[in-house]
Amino acid sequence: MIGIKGVASFLPENCIDNITQALRFGESEDFIQKKIGARKLPRKTGGDDTSDLVVYAVEALFKKYPALKRENIDALVVVTQNGDGEGLPHTAAIAQEKLGLSTSVAAFDISLGCSGYVYGLYVLKGFMEAVGFRNAVLVTADPYSKVIDDGDRVTALLFGDASTATWLGLDAEWELGPSHFGTDGSGSDYLQVKEQRLQMNGRQVYNFAALRVAPHIEELLKTANLSAGDIDAYCLHQGSMAILEAISRRFPEIKERFVKDMCHTGNTVSSSIPLLLEDRLGLEEWNRIIISGFGVGLSWASALLIKNRRKQ
Amino acid sequence: MIGIKGVASFLPENCIDNITQALRFGESEDFIQKKIGARKLPRKTGGDDTSDLVVYAVEALFKKYPALKRENIDALVVVTQNGDGEGLPHTAAIAQEKLGLSTSVAAFDISLGCSGYVYGLYVLKGFMEAVGFRNAVLVTADPYSKVIDDGDRVTALLFGDASTATWLGLDAEWELGPSHFGTDGSGSDYLQVKEQRLQMNGRQVYNFAALRVAPHIEELLKTANLSAGDIDAYCLHQGSMAILEAISRRFPEIKERFVKDMCHTGNTVSSSIPLLLEDRLGLEEWNRIIISGFGVGLSWASALLIKNRRKQ
Repeated sequence: MIGIKGVASFLPENCIDNITQALRFGESEDFIQKKIGARKLPRKTGGDDTSDLVVYAVEALFKKYPALKRENIDALVVVTQNGDGEGLPHTAAIAQEKLGLSTSVAAFDISLGCSGYVYGLYVLKGFMEAVGFRNAVLVTADPYSKVIDDGDRVTALLFGDASTATWLGLDAEWELGPSHFGTDGSGSDYLQVKEQRLQMNGRQVYNFAALRVAPHIEELLKTANLSAGDIDAYCLHQGSMAILEAISRRFPEIKERFVKDMCHTGNTVSSSIPLLLEDRLGLEEWNRIIISGFGVGLSWASALLIKNRRKQ
Repeated sequence: MIGIKGVASFLPENCIDNITQALRFGESEDFIQKKIGARKLPRKTGGDDTSDLVVYAVEALFKKYPALKRENIDALVVVTQNGDGEGLPHTAAIAQEKLGLSTSVAAFDISLGCSGYVYGLYVLKGFMEAVGFRNAVLVTADPYSKVIDDGDRVTALLFGDASTATWLGLDAEWELGPSHFGTDGSGSDYLQVKEQRLQMNGRQVYNFAALRVAPHIEELLKTANLSAGDIDAYCLHQGSMAILEAISRRFPEIKERFVKDMCHTGNTVSSSIPLLLEDRLGLEEWNRIIISGFGVGLSWASALLIKNRRKQ
């Protein structure tokens, strides 16, 4: 059975100081701390395109896991809605060449935003099992700085650039358990790019997340026949501190199990969940994790990750 | 096991007369017939966006297969590199709403071109099996008319608009057998959109297809432990008549089993293979089909479809 063998990431060194930026918009440090949650927002340099962010994350994965050999990678999947160029070709093909991967690699992009990592795990796991692949890499790289208007208070304070790479393979420490998905295109214009500029209806996106996500997690718990207290940690998409507060309030007894860690990254779209997992999958005390992503589409996805006890 | 239960399609009524268009470029009817292969090129009307093409194909699927109920669809996947809008949101979410599908539908786009249908089948089958879905629809809708410069002889004579919808589910008449995939990003600029205009290096794309595809099919036959003569039909991406001729020449004894049917469609990108399958999956004498798609990326994919004898 295919599962998660490891996660690595890339964060650009170049950062926006979000406190300084907030003052420019007439916002306070308190607002940044309590509502946004990010004091720093990493920004890729202009010379780097999305495929370069893919390369940096995958190279970090190779460095962290020497057992993963470049020549053994069967598939490379990139979750992005801000790829290189203008729609075609796909970024995964460009990255295949930059990474020096075999031409027998299967490569494609998945177009999803903040729900994309959860989807990507199950899509790639399923694809690998359907075609008999042994090792694959799931990359998230969706640099919103390409489409953010620095003068737009709603988006400029929120999003950071990042990329992550997740190694999927056999005999993994973490297995993919039950999952739930959802889509509501009636909210498709709440978060969209128009005339090359990101537009966000912050109120509507907040309402959507505050109303949809907690019940979705409850449904997942029901499917898994578990209660909220049976889960060691909730690694949700780090949309904003206000959204995380609104969702975790719905689970008052275990509120502190909702990981909040976006102070130095901001909302990194599909990279936020793997950024949380990167250093935490090794925690001995964690046996069950719920992940949940939600955003553009509107689209949402929640899943249970289960530690493989045979691997311990 | 998840397989193919049916295929339906949408072809815009509005068509370009490719003979007339050829004369404008100083090309002969003979050239159109023998090298291009398409006398007509369907063109979507300006009022229809990609998500509308998705809707038309899925509605055609509902009409053709009354057993497929709207409320039973678990996932909607759209293969496109020319979706609605500018990258985000994904077209599948917009189509979820236009089709009135449940908000519990899993929906995403796959960014791939002419290899996209073969990939899409295995990605969606795998995803469904990984998460326990029973019914899903794979849509291809990549209207190149959105990015074609009518004055560009290389692309204007070649591409037609179309969309298709494939029902994947349990107890299907056709099962998905062995598959092979490939990617070579060193040719990523042979077919790309720049400044909202499709650019194609026709010679390089032809060489790639003429050289790569036949050996790829041979590899697949080897994996399946079959010889070329064991396959009833070869349904390849209808890139151009010249490409189909070059590939089929490599199989001289069974050359006539390569289906050539693009006269009224042109090269419809990821829709070409399902357009071939739509009316042929019911042929009694067909038990094994090889499908193969190749193009933008560069990317290629070949697979064996096997008739489920228990269903006969």
